[in-house]
Amino acid sequence: MHVIGLQNSKKTLLASPGNRLALGKNGEWKQVLAESSMEALPLPKLVEVLQQLQDQNKRHIAVVDNTSDDGVASFYPKFIQAGFSIATPNKKAFSGSLEHYSAILHTALQPETIQKGPLVYQESTVGAGLPIISTLDDLVITGDRIKKIEGVLSGTMSYIFNEFSPPQGSTRKFSEIVTVAREKGYTEPNPGDDLSGSDVARKLTILSRLIPDLANALPEGFKSVDTQSLTPAGLLDEKDADTYVKRLPEFDAEFDEMRAKAQANNSVLRYVGLIDVEKKVIRAGLQSYPVDHAFATSLGGSDNIISFSTERYSPRPLLVQGAGAGAEVTAMGVVADLTRIAQRRF
Amino acid sequence: MHVIGLQNSKKTLLASPGNRLALGKNGEWKQVLAESSMEALPLPKLVEVLQQLQDQNKRHIAVVDNTSDDGVASFYPKFIQAGFSIATPNKKAFSGSLEHYSAILHTALQPETIQKGPLVYQESTVGAGLPIISTLDDLVITGDRIKKIEGVLSGTMSYIFNEFSPPQGSTRKFSEIVTVAREKGYTEPNPGDDLSGSDVARKLTILSRLIPDLANALPEGFKSVDTQSLTPAGLLDEKDADTYVKRLPEFDAEFDEMRAKAQANNSVLRYVGLIDVEKKVIRAGLQSYPVDHAFATSLGGSDNIISFSTERYSPRPLLVQGAGAGAEVTAMGVVADLTRIAQRRF
Repeated sequence: MHVIGLQNSKKTLLASPGNRLALGKNGEWKQVLAESSMEALPLPKLVEVLQQLQDQNKRHIAVVDNTSDDGVASFYPKFIQAGFSIATPNKKAFSGSLEHYSAILHTALQPETIQKGPLVYQESTVGAGLPIISTLDDLVITGDRIKKIEGVLSGTMSYIFNEFSPPQGSTRKFSEIVTVAREKGYTEPNPGDDLSGSDVARKLTILSRLIPDLANALPEGFKSVDTQSLTPAGLLDEKDADTYVKRLPEFDAEFDEMRAKAQANNSVLRYVGLIDVEKKVIRAGLQSYPVDHAFATSLGGSDNIISFSTERYSPRPLLVQGAGAGAEVTAMGVVADLTRIAQRRF
Repeated sequence: MHVIGLQNSKKTLLASPGNRLALGKNGEWKQVLAESSMEALPLPKLVEVLQQLQDQNKRHIAVVDNTSDDGVASFYPKFIQAGFSIATPNKKAFSGSLEHYSAILHTALQPETIQKGPLVYQESTVGAGLPIISTLDDLVITGDRIKKIEGVLSGTMSYIFNEFSPPQGSTRKFSEIVTVAREKGYTEPNPGDDLSGSDVARKLTILSRLIPDLANALPEGFKSVDTQSLTPAGLLDEKDADTYVKRLPEFDAEFDEMRAKAQANNSVLRYVGLIDVEKKVIRAGLQSYPVDHAFATSLGGSDNIISFSTERYSPRPLLVQGAGAGAEVTAMGVVADLTRIAQRRF
């Protein structure tokens, strides 16, 4: 594998035909890119230039989209049409409208595209480097029938509820835990973006589209997922992050009440994603689990956990657990995807 | 993918050039094979015939070894030399002597072999269809450093100790649980074959050879693993399975004592495999775990669980759990391997 191009929102670096980019030692690439004399290319121009390199080098090209940008995601059909593979942790393309998702599939399935052999891998969109997408793919491709997928899919939500509602119970305030999580950098700059549940809804969209029975279930993508926002009604219009956090204690009583109810039932609260294939339910929201359930006992830190119940894996499910966010484990998923592309196309 | 040949210890079926085998509907293949007029071919002859088919069909051939036979395993270098890929749940080739294992690698790495493109996949040798080998491969290939692998790797041992030493404690006798397990078909015909720990030692051998720092650690393969046999000293010479089981109650007191010691420490007993890379320890044996440890709380039935502690996945490990034995989940791993071969070579 050679790196032949790098682009961020400001600058571009391109290798000359037949060569790889000179990026210096570990980590120096950032500066090399910043000092490039070439302004960032508009995406149509970038595709054109990469196609020329492909024609000259006679080697397969893979695009790694490490942004979380809608604009780049909307360009996937063009990349694929040009014959480029894609490896990405960007959830936008696969969790948006069914129309855009179908356009990607449709492009990939055109005979003249298939001939160029582009592949699309997205392991890190759910659970970062954890083997989640690949496991679901293997279950489906080998003829298993998925019955239910259930999991703690957001590292931020995991941390918040592991602290707020541990198996042994707690009296800590919800607002205090969110504030600490924000200070530690576990949340988005505005914690409301995590508490909305849309990150979990996006991951559920990606997973459900890999299940044949649900491939067309969510016309508007993550917006079609039944999602419980944890932002209190009184804060829904609060756009300023600092004010949002400052006012959160006003609503602690609501969260205390939910926790007390769970504790009275010897249960904990977890914010989970649920896909029930038979009932065609796809939902993101708070759920209570008995204190001896894996989601209560086994989780810690900002771990993700996901449980696949299938015709083969039942009554006991297949479980995958571990860190589901962070630069290193996300990069692992992307590089493993790139390796799979290299094994199949170079 | 086409099936072009089937062979068991008695009979062989071969397709004519350009055709696939006619195997009837689901499940009928067994009878079709049994009624074949062709006696099972000696392996050298089989390779020769398959090579002719490969030359005529101009298509890549994969051998699926669904035996647990040493003789077939010892033939892998010949398959690979002929350019055939291998997908197998058979542990014998990869857990035997380092010499044989190295011969397989050496053959695969000869320039004239590489050109033919054979691939070797063995997901189902550890944990059946659970993503264990592929996860370890991805960790290593993306540059992570494995620190420790620890797991309940035998479905039989899992069942026995989940029953004998649950988190809430138990007074059931070891011999009684083994007897029930045998009646349910969870053990080998002679439970002594499970209690010897050699199945776990074989799996540890396979895993450790995928870790660069330990690639050459076990010259005699599974025999070099530090393995604790659970067969009581007084039964080591008992070869008759029925007598073995009948005499097991004589030794219940030994097991009661170990359990009492664990329970006094608020712990459970589990038969685990352990690979400590830094200390270069590779061991199969009984270990006690606190009652709130995942190996105590989360396991049930005959589940396998495996925990990868790495530079990236620490202090909290990456965990994979689920059914680790049985025809369906084993077949899943083999078919997923075949799919990967098909994606890369057909």
